[in-house]
Amino acid sequence: MIRLITRGAKVTRTTVSHADLMGAPASAVRGAIRTGSYTGHTAGLAAGKLQCNLAILPERYALDFLRFCQRNPKPCPIVGVGDTGDPSLPTLGRDIDIRTDVSKYRVFRDGALSEEVTDISDVWADDLVPVALGCSFTFENALVRNGIPVRHLETGRNVPMFRSNIDLVPAGRFGGKMVVTMRPIPTEQVESAREISRRYPQAHGAPIAVGDPSQIGIADLSAPDWGDAVDIKDGEIPVYWACGVTPQNVLLAAGLPICITHSPGHMLVADVAEDAETTILP
Amino acid sequence: MIRLITRGAKVTRTTVSHADLMGAPASAVRGAIRTGSYTGHTAGLAAGKLQCNLAILPERYALDFLRFCQRNPKPCPIVGVGDTGDPSLPTLGRDIDIRTDVSKYRVFRDGALSEEVTDISDVWADDLVPVALGCSFTFENALVRNGIPVRHLETGRNVPMFRSNIDLVPAGRFGGKMVVTMRPIPTEQVESAREISRRYPQAHGAPIAVGDPSQIGIADLSAPDWGDAVDIKDGEIPVYWACGVTPQNVLLAAGLPICITHSPGHMLVADVAEDAETTILP
Repeated sequence: MIRLITRGAKVTRTTVSHADLMGAPASAVRGAIRTGSYTGHTAGLAAGKLQCNLAILPERYALDFLRFCQRNPKPCPIVGVGDTGDPSLPTLGRDIDIRTDVSKYRVFRDGALSEEVTDISDVWADDLVPVALGCSFTFENALVRNGIPVRHLETGRNVPMFRSNIDLVPAGRFGGKMVVTMRPIPTEQVESAREISRRYPQAHGAPIAVGDPSQIGIADLSAPDWGDAVDIKDGEIPVYWACGVTPQNVLLAAGLPICITHSPGHMLVADVAEDAETTILP
Repeated sequence: MIRLITRGAKVTRTTVSHADLMGAPASAVRGAIRTGSYTGHTAGLAAGKLQCNLAILPERYALDFLRFCQRNPKPCPIVGVGDTGDPSLPTLGRDIDIRTDVSKYRVFRDGALSEEVTDISDVWADDLVPVALGCSFTFENALVRNGIPVRHLETGRNVPMFRSNIDLVPAGRFGGKMVVTMRPIPTEQVESAREISRRYPQAHGAPIAVGDPSQIGIADLSAPDWGDAVDIKDGEIPVYWACGVTPQNVLLAAGLPICITHSPGHMLVADVAEDAETTILP
């Protein structure tokens, strides 16, 4: 069990399990997280709803960060941006309080991890801007719905992630290389996987490369930089998608005095349908 | 003939016609505009390339304007954002100079039209941020390619535009009501028109309403607020799309000390393919 530093209004207890929350609506998942009843990961919860990567940063860096995300829409698809100092994100969910509604946060100071917490109420400040970015859960769900196997889900692992040699388009102090995920796909389903994932521009879209890992600067598929290695079976080809760890790395490298992200797998669960035309609540 | 106030490097002459530029690549269209050889509209030029609405505003308003556009993606799809004070837009075209590469601009000061010019070199300032937004040419081309008639194109008119009663999601001083365009579509092709236009989120996407104009606050389809009225024939239904005049109106209402837009129909012609997955040049 991971030791959590618990702060703010939440108490350190887990009274609701992941299984308990299966089938619960997004607002109930957020509610359990908000009260401290649930501090686990959000994979598989609030099926059909958009889940989001989170980046919170001071307003003076926000324009450049939005420009950076606009220029790198595949790793950094913007799905919601809050007002400065306002912890609600009304276009993503009717009652979101971004200070409490994510089950685990990482607080970075001057480019280094400072703390991992379940509540950022006492870190929140009037100059902070919350930015929500799309996440691969959305297109993975669509692949599975369409009969395309996703190995790391089948085997209960984390997706393998790799630092590529693909340059990001910089903006201000934000730039670097793209992080990609790899999923082995049966050869005859690669085109279908491309078509399906392309329908989700809010969730990394179509693959950025297929096949030989060296074409994007990956030396060894059995040694991911993050996550777990997965087997590539006969008749399968490695397929690479842009990854939401990219903006986290870029924020880290930018060395901001403070920025806050979700912890991996502990996403913001929105009320927006993951297959909606836009990520703005009607 | 409209009297143009010509400023900066361009001279007042039109040595190249619209017909001369048909079939020319985007860079040649921009080149003819840049040198002052062409000052006309861009409809039908650089076929297959993205054309863009343009908004240029001071940096201190840019974060709120980007938030506004993100919250209203159907009328205001962001396709490119420049660095502050930098007139290039390298993600949209390799040689763009936004001060000269649009054939007609409108300069607004304190919320009122100040001048209409063919060059903004002497208005440009180090604190200005250029923002390019998608335009309806993209999905209209796709409708026509797929055999769906577009009345105002058939009849050589401007698309009819209406102020709707649909509230925009505000950000900072930006907000108001959505402007919509109307195209009469044969009843049996409405679903197809919806599916086709939905594939272009960078160009207003799917319709926002179909049928009775009163449902979105339009009193009289024969009296558009901008553009030209078009006939609705037997067997056709009026279909409404979000319109790129929306951000222009919102900017005007915001009363910024200065902002600059393209003049209607005089769009920024990009090198990006209009059916590319993203609006970022590879």
